[in-house]
Amino acid sequence: MSETHALEEGSAFAPQFDDSGLIACITRASGDGEVLMLAYMNAEALRLTLETGVAHYWSRSRNSLWRKGDTSGQIQTVREIRTDCDQDALLLTVEAGGDGGACHTGRRSCFYRKVIAGDEGVGLVFD
Amino acid sequence: MSETHALEEGSAFAPQFDDSGLIACITRASGDGEVLMLAYMNAEALRLTLETGVAHYWSRSRNSLWRKGDTSGQIQTVREIRTDCDQDALLLTVEAGGDGGACHTGRRSCFYRKVIAGDEGVGLVFD
Repeated sequence: MSETHALEEGSAFAPQFDDSGLIACITRASGDGEVLMLAYMNAEALRLTLETGVAHYWSRSRNSLWRKGDTSGQIQTVREIRTDCDQDALLLTVEAGGDGGACHTGRRSCFYRKVIAGDEGVGLVFD
Repeated sequence: MSETHALEEGSAFAPQFDDSGLIACITRASGDGEVLMLAYMNAEALRLTLETGVAHYWSRSRNSLWRKGDTSGQIQTVREIRTDCDQDALLLTVEAGGDGGACHTGRRSCFYRKVIAGDEGVGLVFD
């Protein structure tokens, strides 16, 4: 079995961290599947997530391990983890504690703005 | 308005490409919202996506611009583009042509395996 075939069709979990030691992680809500956020994990964040069942990430801006919800109360209990074909991305399904949101701005999802291309260029619309 | 505040609460679209000139892009299906894939765009792929309404990406493995579906027929007509709070990720909602799938392995979604932690370690399960 070639390396590519093993990654794509095997049952061994071999997360492909990038040159910075990170893997992209999409997080969605367990109830309605809404995409809440995109974050990154390093190997330790992934290990802690698997061990504790609570989502841990690596903050690229703060350069530190981060248990989501420690300050906001929006602790994410992990219901499911998936990986993609080439195992360089993760998809978490979570139940969010606190107010059920994920965004530090107070919104439920970080994706609270649409990109709109109009006559006057490209802008953002809140909805 | 601070730079952070402008990024998070402004209506100007200012995609934050990383050191490699890329921005992460989550792509979901327009019908049921299923997360299909995670890919990356550079500035040109994003520009072409906005101009044509068809999803373009940057392939990190092939190091080339990539109009999704050119070989598979799974052309992605973009119904909506969102960006997140700090504008370093995109969320596309698309209608996929061809067989409606997105994964080069023939599955609809690239996330066709669950990560399962059991007594014998961590493995993957197809479903």
